[in-house]
Amino acid sequence: MTLSDDVLGRARVVDTDDLKAYYAKLGKFQAGALWTVANDIEPWYPQPKSVPTLWSYRELRPLVLEALGLVSGDDAGRRVVMLVNPGRKDISASVGLLYSGLQVMGPGESMTAHRHQAAALRFVLEGQGAWTVVDGQKLKVGPRDFAITPNWTWHEHGNEGSDEPVIWQDGLDIPLVNAHDAGFYEVHPDLYQKQGEVVNSSLLTYGHGQLRPYGYEAWDKRYSPLFAYPWERTYQALLDVAAASDGSPYDGIILEYSNPLTGGSVMPTMSAHLQMLRPGEATKAHRHTGSVMYTVAKGSGHSVIAGKRFDWNEGDVFCVPSWAWHEHANGSVTDDAVLFSYNDFPVIRSLAFWREEAYPDNNGHQTVE
Amino acid sequence: MTLSDDVLGRARVVDTDDLKAYYAKLGKFQAGALWTVANDIEPWYPQPKSVPTLWSYRELRPLVLEALGLVSGDDAGRRVVMLVNPGRKDISASVGLLYSGLQVMGPGESMTAHRHQAAALRFVLEGQGAWTVVDGQKLKVGPRDFAITPNWTWHEHGNEGSDEPVIWQDGLDIPLVNAHDAGFYEVHPDLYQKQGEVVNSSLLTYGHGQLRPYGYEAWDKRYSPLFAYPWERTYQALLDVAAASDGSPYDGIILEYSNPLTGGSVMPTMSAHLQMLRPGEATKAHRHTGSVMYTVAKGSGHSVIAGKRFDWNEGDVFCVPSWAWHEHANGSVTDDAVLFSYNDFPVIRSLAFWREEAYPDNNGHQTVE
Amino acid sequence: MTLSDDVLGRARVVDTDDLKAYYAKLGKFQAGALWTVANDIEPWYPQPKSVPTLWSYRELRPLVLEALGLVSGDDAGRRVVMLVNPGRKDISASVGLLYSGLQVMGPGESMTAHRHQAAALRFVLEGQGAWTVVDGQKLKVGPRDFAITPNWTWHEHGNEGSDEPVIWQDGLDIPLVNAHDAGFYEVHPDLYQKQGEVVNSSLLTYGHGQLRPYGYEAWDKRYSPLFAYPWERTYQALLDVAAASDGSPYDGIILEYSNPLTGGSVMPTMSAHLQMLRPGEATKAHRHTGSVMYTVAKGSGHSVIAGKRFDWNEGDVFCVPSWAWHEHANGSVTDDAVLFSYNDFPVIRSLAFWREEAYPDNNGHQTVE
Amino acid sequence: MTLSDDVLGRARVVDTDDLKAYYAKLGKFQAGALWTVANDIEPWYPQPKSVPTLWSYRELRPLVLEALGLVSGDDAGRRVVMLVNPGRKDISASVGLLYSGLQVMGPGESMTAHRHQAAALRFVLEGQGAWTVVDGQKLKVGPRDFAITPNWTWHEHGNEGSDEPVIWQDGLDIPLVNAHDAGFYEVHPDLYQKQGEVVNSSLLTYGHGQLRPYGYEAWDKRYSPLFAYPWERTYQALLDVAAASDGSPYDGIILEYSNPLTGGSVMPTMSAHLQMLRPGEATKAHRHTGSVMYTVAKGSGHSVIAGKRFDWNEGDVFCVPSWAWHEHANGSVTDDAVLFSYNDFPVIRSLAFWREEAYPDNNGHQTVE
Repeated sequence: MTLSDDVLGRARVVDTDDLKAYYAKLGKFQAGALWTVANDIEPWYPQPKSVPTLWSYRELRPLVLEALGLVSGDDAGRRVVMLVNPGRKDISASVGLLYSGLQVMGPGESMTAHRHQAAALRFVLEGQGAWTVVDGQKLKVGPRDFAITPNWTWHEHGNEGSDEPVIWQDGLDIPLVNAHDAGFYEVHPDLYQKQGEVVNSSLLTYGHGQLRPYGYEAWDKRYSPLFAYPWERTYQALLDVAAASDGSPYDGIILEYSNPLTGGSVMPTMSAHLQMLRPGEATKAHRHTGSVMYTVAKGSGHSVIAGKRFDWNEGDVFCVPSWAWHEHANGSVTDDAVLFSYNDFPVIRSLAFWREEAYPDNNGHQTVE
Repeated sequence: MTLSDDVLGRARVVDTDDLKAYYAKLGKFQAGALWTVANDIEPWYPQPKSVPTLWSYRELRPLVLEALGLVSGDDAGRRVVMLVNPGRKDISASVGLLYSGLQVMGPGESMTAHRHQAAALRFVLEGQGAWTVVDGQKLKVGPRDFAITPNWTWHEHGNEGSDEPVIWQDGLDIPLVNAHDAGFYEVHPDLYQKQGEVVNSSLLTYGHGQLRPYGYEAWDKRYSPLFAYPWERTYQALLDVAAASDGSPYDGIILEYSNPLTGGSVMPTMSAHLQMLRPGEATKAHRHTGSVMYTVAKGSGHSVIAGKRFDWNEGDVFCVPSWAWHEHANGSVTDDAVLFSYNDFPVIRSLAFWREEAYPDNNGHQTVE
Repeated sequence: MTLSDDVLGRARVVDTDDLKAYYAKLGKFQAGALWTVANDIEPWYPQPKSVPTLWSYRELRPLVLEALGLVSGDDAGRRVVMLVNPGRKDISASVGLLYSGLQVMGPGESMTAHRHQAAALRFVLEGQGAWTVVDGQKLKVGPRDFAITPNWTWHEHGNEGSDEPVIWQDGLDIPLVNAHDAGFYEVHPDLYQKQGEVVNSSLLTYGHGQLRPYGYEAWDKRYSPLFAYPWERTYQALLDVAAASDGSPYDGIILEYSNPLTGGSVMPTMSAHLQMLRPGEATKAHRHTGSVMYTVAKGSGHSVIAGKRFDWNEGDVFCVPSWAWHEHANGSVTDDAVLFSYNDFPVIRSLAFWREEAYPDNNGHQTVE
Repeated sequence: MTLSDDVLGRARVVDTDDLKAYYAKLGKFQAGALWTVANDIEPWYPQPKSVPTLWSYRELRPLVLEALGLVSGDDAGRRVVMLVNPGRKDISASVGLLYSGLQVMGPGESMTAHRHQAAALRFVLEGQGAWTVVDGQKLKVGPRDFAITPNWTWHEHGNEGSDEPVIWQDGLDIPLVNAHDAGFYEVHPDLYQKQGEVVNSSLLTYGHGQLRPYGYEAWDKRYSPLFAYPWERTYQALLDVAAASDGSPYDGIILEYSNPLTGGSVMPTMSAHLQMLRPGEATKAHRHTGSVMYTVAKGSGHSVIAGKRFDWNEGDVFCVPSWAWHEHANGSVTDDAVLFSYNDFPVIRSLAFWREEAYPDNNGHQTVE
């Protein structure tokens, strides 16, 4: 948008020598003149430092596997290749205040337990042996399953497979926590938790989200009691919804993983979705506040983000910064494509920062640079 | 409880002739003396007029079917045999302020559409051809499926089977609505609604309760957007929960049909549950405010209510009035038994009237009279 | 409304001898035919048994004072003249499921402490010595002050004046509690409570409702922590609002006593209002579900309820049953008139029964019969 | 806290040449190794860049007044001396993600209207002529009055006094908005708003927070409808609460300015308090997540923040960063002292980041460095 700052209502002071001397005096008392920064700190519209970026799974996978031989889990803490936005290296973010990484665990490995203020989520990319223990509950997760590890829950994980590595994607709100000076961390005093008897107990108890079990009133946490959302059920749900609804013009058939006890987001700081683009589908563009990380769960296609085209295949990860126009297109006319994503929308909505606009021209499709 | 009213703190006035003359004067001005009724209107504990009652399906089924030949659907409005509590004939209630009936529809029949302030729910007992249209959505329901028809939704129903009748149980809050002087009723101007294209659309869209679909923010109703809860999914959920949890000492493995958008009850005035008693299970007794209607969905057994034993089989309906001790026992040591129930707990909780107590003696089991 | 039941969509069965025999058979099994009662239990619109009634303070006051000499507080429990709606003597209600009475206490008297499921509220009519202790908090209240005694709080009260009696109006939801089979009652084991040091402590702590004090997070009750709302502050608030707003076309300048911690009603079952009719003001008529009891706090005027005119003066009490048209008029062209009222709207709204309509004719004014 | 990172559960990788080459390869694909930053981005406890700072009114006031002659309101936009935390010059924050400034307006001046995503609040320090128009409502505010200008409300302000300047303190969440890439800004198309007739209308309508007026259901904003909280009422409330309660061991008698329609914080991103330290009172120390800006409204004393003593007088502003120990002491044994403060607690609580600890030693008092 070509909005000028040289209008009444913006700061238009021309610095003189007297003013500069004045600024120096202010500086001695930990003060400054607002008009020297006002236009920058109150922009006409969002000016994220993050830029649209795609991380190619084909390119990164070998590097991720290479890490297996370079560091041990016990030395690294977690053996993770971080996805760093070129504009946000300063805070190790992937986009906005969200962090993401690809974690690899070799057969038989297990990582020690810890907990921290930052919330985490997992989307499994490959491997059949992945497990995690969250606050004593053991969860076994396979490819395309989604799991959560909320704020301050004890968690450890590993790979109980015997021959293949596990690679999963981590999503955490670490930069958000740090921006708010709220980070805490503890190593589990016993390094590993005692586990409950029943594997995937929350999936058994809460997995049928439209039925709530005895004892739910005792749940006083701000996050979902359901820790795992298997691919099979969510993919079937996409098919069911597609049979009954047209979905979103911007996202195709899209479902949010939700907290069955509240109907809300899985966690207070991050929500996650799974969306299906039908064969040949090309969604219309929109933009909104809030940042999003996408992972290609199935199929191939492309997205246009802020006018730039990004082609993607399974395993690829790409980001959409706040207020960037974006639209998605399935590259196949026979098969569906499915994107997993997570975002900071719960924060944006809590703070009353949400805005959304439909792309106004060209029937909703951006012109690709 | 043997609590005497002849104590300080209760009304203990002995009426004299002067007092009776005084009462007569009060009567002329639409007034009365509180102490003449205080102990009755402020009892030590609830004194429901409803009594524990069992309605035998074996006995009522022939009478229900007989109605097919006695009245037409168009003349009756709805062809229903009401279940009337001996203590509440005055308000046609089954227990407390809840109403229930057994509705029968012959092959090919359909009932006209209407709407009313009272909310309704259905539990199908027999027949494969049952359908209902609720606010334009056609739902096909079979035996043991649960469906809702909330307050003021247009609804009509019928039996599209060709050879067998449909019998389903209706549950409505008609007495509640009338107690609150809030009844409204309208016949659909066209007698029959236009139907949406997709049958059971809400089941497709919302049936996976832990995943919420695009467009949910537009749902502004006080009731669940999911109108049907099929037996297969709910029964499977009972088995899943049983694998991960001990359940309730009073109810075995018990699930509440819930609103996937809020995690709460399906409607503001009635909630409903499905519970499984494992082979040989005999639950402990408790009591609570709130009234409950039970229907035997599967198996056989007995319940002890206020010290009286009621044996039940599939299709039987029985009630538990407010504050009555109750416990349930599965009569089989090999098969599970399943009870459907609905109640007025959402009202009781909204009004802050909820109380609950465990039976204190004999390891939680009442002595049967 | 002249709506006929002889239309398709209503029950129109003509009873034959066969049908009557059938009904007798049903009766043996605690059953009945819905179509024999359907039109009555599902009316076109509310059919309250309550009728608009006015209780004259001029007529009742001598009778209330007479009670002082007829019964002792200890024998009566509470020395109260109940206001009984001619249509609801069966449940001792004043209107709908609301109860009201005029309580009188002589100088130096005190009533023992008890608690019950029913919630109570007080509006003081005369006397300077009134006090009550609610859950240990002593409150001193004077004429036109409003106080609450929520569900299950211990409460006792008395008159510490030396020469004049106290008369106050009680409002309770006793009929509501009984309709829901939820009544409990306890006499205080010590008959009188230990009192906190600070009189009117909640008024000091919470009385400035737009400022919340340290410790508020510990308040976990469903009712307001503010137990007394003095006339002076509420009347001043009416004047302030009148300076900034036109108010309601149906109620003039109207304020609801609210819970400062939630902004909602003072209690889950009853809310209360104070409204001012400006000099010469005659409001438009409307109707709504929910029942209301009005008390004239100041001035004189009249109301038209369901087409009938009721003239009122200070101290008079009158009721508006559910769905009855009503409008109010100040009889003075120089002075304002103020009405106190309480109602069951929180229940009606919780149960999603609320409806409201403006009177459509004659510029909003009913024709008086 | 002396917690070492050289333990199992933290990242303890020693970089070799091979690893450095690996890191370089990762960098080519916008990736990095988590273990190289893990201990920094997941600290044991919060590591704010902000430092405890005091801005002296005596020192800054002349500089603030000097600005009157250096820039015009129309050129500056707003003529404000910002209070900049030495550790956060990068984002122009006073502490954490909160901004503050001292704004000065000469007699007769007025600033143009604009709106922005950032929320603002005002605490008036001096001058009788201050006014602001927020979404059309004109508010006149005097010394120690608190006012809000929520997210996206149109606002302009000025000084209608004839001889003295107005100096007020601005508090905004600008750094928070920018951290979340959510900033929007608009200049009012007419530069100045049309004003409603009644000055301070929201104070008249909502100022008695325990009474809610007709029309409240229409209020659908996330912020308080009450835009001004005058000193007199709030100070009287402090005295009232002090008469009935001991207050907080950490804050003395403390009240939160609240939203009368919800009982919650005035805005979704910032809350504000007024607290009174009684003569001779020295509070105990505690620490919590969340950042706070304090302004001395009345009296003098000192605070100990992270072991450092800060003496303060009226008009001084000081900050407490997240997780810093802090305690306050009134310097007078005869007069009370009053502190105004605002903070980001609503954000911290929304994101489930809240923590709090009492200082464990020395009876709750830090040792001053």
